[in-house]
Amino acid sequence: MMRPAISYITLGVTDLARSVNFYRDVFGWPTAGIVGTELTHGAVAFFKLQHGLTLALWPRNSIAADAGIGCGEPDQCGLLLAHNVTSAAEVDQLMSILATAGATIHKPAQPLVWGGYGGLIADPDGHLWEIVYNPN
Amino acid sequence: MMRPAISYITLGVTDLARSVNFYRDVFGWPTAGIVGTELTHGAVAFFKLQHGLTLALWPRNSIAADAGIGCGEPDQCGLLLAHNVTSAAEVDQLMSILATAGATIHKPAQPLVWGGYGGLIADPDGHLWEIVYNPN
Repeated sequence: MMRPAISYITLGVTDLARSVNFYRDVFGWPTAGIVGTELTHGAVAFFKLQHGLTLALWPRNSIAADAGIGCGEPDQCGLLLAHNVTSAAEVDQLMSILATAGATIHKPAQPLVWGGYGGLIADPDGHLWEIVYNPN
Repeated sequence: MMRPAISYITLGVTDLARSVNFYRDVFGWPTAGIVGTELTHGAVAFFKLQHGLTLALWPRNSIAADAGIGCGEPDQCGLLLAHNVTSAAEVDQLMSILATAGATIHKPAQPLVWGGYGGLIADPDGHLWEIVYNPN
């Protein structure tokens, strides 16, 4: 019935330009920048990821308008995105690169209780990203 | 430097069993159910999606413990996940199936300003999912 598939991950952001800068310049991910500004609540930025997945950045108030809801305060406990790499050394290397590029290190890389190794960074809205190695 | 890739999408949930039931029984997505209960904050459920992506459900207080943060109130403006289908008719059909299976319809399927067609449903924690057709 419903294929097990996600096409777009849209993050609600407070300042679209600031978030585009982060994902383009700190993560180094490819984007055409902000598009759709001709439409009300249309301003959005897309990042084409591997395997047909797209990351979208969309203002929080546009999500609110689209969904007919009010926004509360941003909440860090609702979402954790993970970027897996192939070794603990690669975790350290990537965390270092991201920190140098301006990312906020939320938790330094360290051994994890389940046997992995990883650390957390936060985007400008506090969305959490885990850079992680899973040896299993 | 950083591949444009996301490996895991982890949703913070209030009631893990309730959320597993939703994604397994309403979405119909494959899972081994709750695992990791032998570890503190280890209880988690994984759903293997297409193209190597995994959806994980993890209690909000486990994310808080892992990240060393406090949780505010759940916030619907921070995230919108999209499941694309190949026609407007398929949007209607899938929304109907999901509603019958117990999903909360947050916004009925309708034409969208950018030319698409879609509707919104909410999971038990209010995480928004768009069932959408993009003709472009």
